Amino acid sequence: MHPLDEATALERQDEERLAGRTSAHYTNMGGMFGGFTAGVLLRAVMEDRRRQGPPVALTVNYCAALGEGAFEIECRERRTGRSTQHWSLELTQAGRVCATASVVCGARRPVWSHVTAHPPKIAPPDQVPIFDFGGRFGWLNRYEMRFVKGEVDFAAREANTNLREPVTLVWMRDKPDRPLDHVALAALSDAFIIRAFVVRNVFVPVGSVSLTTFFHADEETLRAQGSKPLLGHATAHVFNGGFFDQAAELWSTDGRLLATSTQIVWYKE
Amino acid sequence: MHPLDEATALERQDEERLAGRTSAHYTNMGGMFGGFTAGVLLRAVMEDRRRQGPPVALTVNYCAALGEGAFEIECRERRTGRSTQHWSLELTQAGRVCATASVVCGARRPVWSHVTAHPPKIAPPDQVPIFDFGGRFGWLNRYEMRFVKGEVDFAAREANTNLREPVTLVWMRDKPDRPLDHVALAALSDAFIIRAFVVRNVFVPVGSVSLTTFFHADEETLRAQGSKPLLGHATAHVFNGGFFDQAAELWSTDGRLLATSTQIVWYKE
Repeated sequence: MHPLDEATALERQDEERLAGRTSAHYTNMGGMFGGFTAGVLLRAVMEDRRRQGPPVALTVNYCAALGEGAFEIECRERRTGRSTQHWSLELTQAGRVCATASVVCGARRPVWSHVTAHPPKIAPPDQVPIFDFGGRFGWLNRYEMRFVKGEVDFAAREANTNLREPVTLVWMRDKPDRPLDHVALAALSDAFIIRAFVVRNVFVPVGSVSLTTFFHADEETLRAQGSKPLLGHATAHVFNGGFFDQAAELWSTDGRLLATSTQIVWYKE
Repeated sequence: MHPLDEATALERQDEERLAGRTSAHYTNMGGMFGGFTAGVLLRAVMEDRRRQGPPVALTVNYCAALGEGAFEIECRERRTGRSTQHWSLELTQAGRVCATASVVCGARRPVWSHVTAHPPKIAPPDQVPIFDFGGRFGWLNRYEMRFVKGEVDFAAREANTNLREPVTLVWMRDKPDRPLDHVALAALSDAFIIRAFVVRNVFVPVGSVSLTTFFHADEETLRAQGSKPLLGHATAHVFNGGFFDQAAELWSTDGRLLATSTQIVWYKE
């Protein structure tokens, strides 16, 4: 079984409650990888028999670090209309709220379509070397990344006064290979290296606060992508008052926009 | 009293429940202006005695049209840490869930700051004429807009085959004037003309599905903006399967980024 499927496996307790367990595969410094949390919350909805249609929006609010061990997800259907279905979720650990989330599913239809964004023009994945994360914490080992721009010097510990652009351009996919689905895409939408690290080229204490991902593709389009690398583009607008943002795009290998994502992240200094 | 303050007034029922009433000031076609819903949900948190710090993130999921009359907001504090405070909200009308929302407040601190986005360079507000909405539905009369790009022909009803850029550039503020605060900023983040109208220059049936706004400024910065016009920039990435996105920036008159916002919108055809 793929580490992502193993890590996000849930056992149903009743119609609205599911039980899960953290996995060493997706640990981060001081808790779990935020993309794991996003993925497991989305999976709770994906596996709900009441679900109608693929997901179009996911918001995860990271309330407290998710510690090693068991957790519970409460998954409540709040409203189902003709076009959209709304879900509210909470992930708790021993009664403590670690994350809240909302998921909207939608009835995708073959109507007028128009793409106004353009994929960044970069070298194909086989011409970009795989980045060596040097075995640092769990989740980094679960992704294959080929940076065209915005890789990070993971050894640096001194503040860098030469600030860099906030942009990352990267070919990325699950490691080992795994056919793309919405759960994997949700996790990938949080797999960009933290913008503060990219700009300052040094680690500083940070924590994701709120992540929103919009899905622009149905299951069939994701199946067509298979396990080929996605093109990820991420940038930031502002670092101010201890919070900065990230805006990201995830494109299929052949240039279809699969998801857009924004997040706001706390930073210490 | 300003229409926004009147429309978003809430009467506390108990610690977690507030009562409100829709207002003719912010009606839309088939319901209320989504910015009103965002504003009144944020106001529920702003007026909560348990609140710690200004808001940094707001997500509103539009579940069903909000009809004329009374509504109730349930506002639950889910987790308060040292840096962030998480709230979950629901807006119901006669027991029907019309919107769910999450708000994160944050302890903003005078730490390292860095702005990587740049305000669009456009003519100052006094050199751009005020757009005449011709008295069309309620909420449009509550905003003064000066379009530099992306205004809409509100009379057109025929499909336009010459697609336009998805971009709007506009000086905008409350009408009548009102000093800016987070509630007004939340409403303004939804006050852009619908991207599908801009691209096709024609009205098509649409409905906001999920809106996320990140606030990048504290109360003091908003007070300094006062009632001067904000610079709004909005664009879209993709219209596909009956859903399109919008990404927006809201800048102060003197070029400070006050908020960024994304939303996903359902369209019929």
